[in-house]
Amino acid sequence: MALQAVGLDKFYRLINHGPTVMVSAKDGGVANVMSAAWACVVDYLPNPKVSVILDKAAFTRRLIEQSGYFALQVPFAKQANLVVAMGESRHDNPNKLTDNGVELFYADGFDIPLVAECSAYILCRLIAEPHNHEKHDLFIGEVLAAFADDRVFQDGRWQFDSVPDELHNLHYVAGGQFYITGKGLKVDKVLPF
Amino acid sequence: MALQAVGLDKFYRLINHGPTVMVSAKDGGVANVMSAAWACVVDYLPNPKVSVILDKAAFTRRLIEQSGYFALQVPFAKQANLVVAMGESRHDNPNKLTDNGVELFYADGFDIPLVAECSAYILCRLIAEPHNHEKHDLFIGEVLAAFADDRVFQDGRWQFDSVPDELHNLHYVAGGQFYITGKGLKVDKVLPF
Repeated sequence: MALQAVGLDKFYRLINHGPTVMVSAKDGGVANVMSAAWACVVDYLPNPKVSVILDKAAFTRRLIEQSGYFALQVPFAKQANLVVAMGESRHDNPNKLTDNGVELFYADGFDIPLVAECSAYILCRLIAEPHNHEKHDLFIGEVLAAFADDRVFQDGRWQFDSVPDELHNLHYVAGGQFYITGKGLKVDKVLPF
Repeated sequence: MALQAVGLDKFYRLINHGPTVMVSAKDGGVANVMSAAWACVVDYLPNPKVSVILDKAAFTRRLIEQSGYFALQVPFAKQANLVVAMGESRHDNPNKLTDNGVELFYADGFDIPLVAECSAYILCRLIAEPHNHEKHDLFIGEVLAAFADDRVFQDGRWQFDSVPDELHNLHYVAGGQFYITGKGLKVDKVLPF
């Protein structure tokens, strides 16, 4: 496998299908990772943007507010236990990354921590909007770069129908219940988005 | 089948797994429906909220701005052709609802048009926020009520593992390519959300 850059014209495809993500950030040498089901595309090029809801109690929220940067990563189905573990707050377990064997890495040119071995990554600069942060816990980021694992995302398309279930993505519901991304379904008439 | 009310404490489960939705609204006797991949939960009770991105060119956007109400509906996989058809703008085809045989209905007490035979519905009152509408095409709604088809959502849980694929949901990527909601995966340790 190898991570490949995904053009900003196609970054939205990495989360368009609504997968559960992990959010990562770092400030003052402290990195953290949290799981989030509430992340979404906001816009394409020429203004590529994503949104994510970050509760006021989330340790990672402060790292994002202070550093101005964050990343969304799209875990594989085989990482479901890690996603659940990253749903625990670092306020409750300061060692949650090391306890769960989380390996971080960095993409060239970006000081945003990324969780190893996910299917895709979207690196963002926070658009500071105090109203949205305070009233809705809503954080919008300008997308700076995107990467995906070429086993599952090639030529701008997910390849889920040709890989085992463990390399699909996760879709969280509640109470520890996920669904994994299922079979492909193609409609010939193409939507305008 | 029968539509059952879903408590506002559990409405988020209807879209937490990231399905593609259809957005509906009505103003001045004119109803419309549009497909949207960019919809998301914003908050739980006591402030149940959802977000959806509505392009400035969308006919439905104006209906929502003028009436102050909208609904999200979660289509079944078998409705994929309808979802693609509702991706066409009413500006391009004023007859898009009748041309595609869309049947609308109303829930008691709400004057928001709903598309028949979807798996779930979330009825909302728009929170007017001109900055978010203009800058991000972002519309946030307060959730007023929710309903789901009891063949696929019972006791607050989706039942996808016990129904045929055609009764799963849709997850849109791009270019007419969807994935349907796949197999369930349960992790014993429960996330705090």
